[in-house]
Amino acid sequence: MDFPSWMSAVQQRTETALEKLLPASTTIPARLHESMRYAALGGGKRVRPLLCHAAGEVFAAPADHLDRAACAVEMIHVYSLVHDDLPCMDDDVLRRGKPTCHVEYDEATALLVGDALQTQAFQVLAEDGADDPARRLAMVALLAHAAGSRGMAGGQAIDLASVGKTLALEELELMHIHKTGALIRAAVLLGAHCGKADQAAIDSLTHFANRAGLLFQVVDDILDAEASTATLGKTAGKDAAQGKPTYVNLLGVSRARAMAAELRDEAHASLAGFGDRAKRLHELTDFIVERSF
Amino acid sequence: MDFPSWMSAVQQRTETALEKLLPASTTIPARLHESMRYAALGGGKRVRPLLCHAAGEVFAAPADHLDRAACAVEMIHVYSLVHDDLPCMDDDVLRRGKPTCHVEYDEATALLVGDALQTQAFQVLAEDGADDPARRLAMVALLAHAAGSRGMAGGQAIDLASVGKTLALEELELMHIHKTGALIRAAVLLGAHCGKADQAAIDSLTHFANRAGLLFQVVDDILDAEASTATLGKTAGKDAAQGKPTYVNLLGVSRARAMAAELRDEAHASLAGFGDRAKRLHELTDFIVERSF
Repeated sequence: MDFPSWMSAVQQRTETALEKLLPASTTIPARLHESMRYAALGGGKRVRPLLCHAAGEVFAAPADHLDRAACAVEMIHVYSLVHDDLPCMDDDVLRRGKPTCHVEYDEATALLVGDALQTQAFQVLAEDGADDPARRLAMVALLAHAAGSRGMAGGQAIDLASVGKTLALEELELMHIHKTGALIRAAVLLGAHCGKADQAAIDSLTHFANRAGLLFQVVDDILDAEASTATLGKTAGKDAAQGKPTYVNLLGVSRARAMAAELRDEAHASLAGFGDRAKRLHELTDFIVERSF
Repeated sequence: MDFPSWMSAVQQRTETALEKLLPASTTIPARLHESMRYAALGGGKRVRPLLCHAAGEVFAAPADHLDRAACAVEMIHVYSLVHDDLPCMDDDVLRRGKPTCHVEYDEATALLVGDALQTQAFQVLAEDGADDPARRLAMVALLAHAAGSRGMAGGQAIDLASVGKTLALEELELMHIHKTGALIRAAVLLGAHCGKADQAAIDSLTHFANRAGLLFQVVDDILDAEASTATLGKTAGKDAAQGKPTYVNLLGVSRARAMAAELRDEAHASLAGFGDRAKRLHELTDFIVERSF
């Protein structure tokens, strides 16, 4: 299967799995469930599910286990978007080409949508009746660590504190390692756990995921600086307008691109030990970069 | 040990365990961790931890396992209070005798505090290195189900939709079974799981917890209608002022008290099979009622 077909197949099975794992919009309370589905379904590039499946394929993980892990990570990601778009955070009106959740519904509902999507992510991981409960439990702990105050939520807090400030490159990196890096790493490692990867493989993939996570952010900053709102499906140029530090602010576009190229090389190199089994991870890495070039 | 001493001992060990299980206020991002500790420490009656320990004692569960389960439930409870107090929800300024989290810090921080406390709850359950990972995993699923859109968060959504409406008694009960009942039931059942309770015992305790949960809410409504803000440590008379349906609105104080007495009897009766081992659960039931009489 060529890469675009593989990507499309994973995106489709993720959508199907999310539809199944989210409560029906007729289940009480109906408005909450309808708004959870509004936020989570029918949009997004599904980068984290793609990474989860690509990492799982290195170890021939069963696709249905990967679906649950991929959906759990995606639910955490969507919850963070819904809360991040709220008026007290980024106050954004457009997401994935649609009105943001609090615009389409209301602020209180969007707050609960994010809260309930986070809970649902842990429920999805915990209720996977698969073998090896000890490994499942480790996956819950891994996702919680990645999402919490020392991971994604912590990155949001660092982001809040950095508005209007000039950060050093190391500080910007610290923010992104938390804000986007932690969940991208979790996506990769959850996929590997579904395939019962050993510790040495987990270590290599951790290195890969750290490079891929930063790569993703640098490319995002380049896109945000250059693309139009219509192309992005979210408000473009927003970070710069809000005085948020970005790699483009700090380095300029040309050096940001050079940094992306270097991160890509490092990401590829960290996969060397897996040979052809890491084919999809290599392809995804290039795909992340090529969005911007 | 008499009941007040037991209660005080559990409250103290819960405080100690929460202090240990929450990230230090010096850990980056410091402001987020400081505000998580502000919201979670040094206040509250710790009703859910008390129920968790009392249920665990029926099965001689190890106290250190109970501490983790009790803290996980309490973190979920505190996150729900922090989000519930936000301007887009109840817009409250006083909680547990202190300024609410968004008043003391800011709205964005309070949003992240709630988000991160929820995550931390699942991390605490998942990282308990205790025996029997399958049971631990079931406990994660149980807590997630209780906290999510078909439990506590769903109850909040029903609550939002009911403001200014006249609910039938059944509808009010449906709301509370979700909003407060689900987490109280989880507190009891997590305690029982820590003691490796069998299914028959879990069934009896589920019945007990359902009665105790409603009892708690009816008593809360009576207190809210009658007590002063100073006594409660939160804004009194708020539900009625916001047009929220309460048992007192619907039944009047006298019939609400009769309902509480009936629920108390049913709660006691459901513990009959445990004999003296359920002593603390009996005492707690009476304590919940006597707050108001």
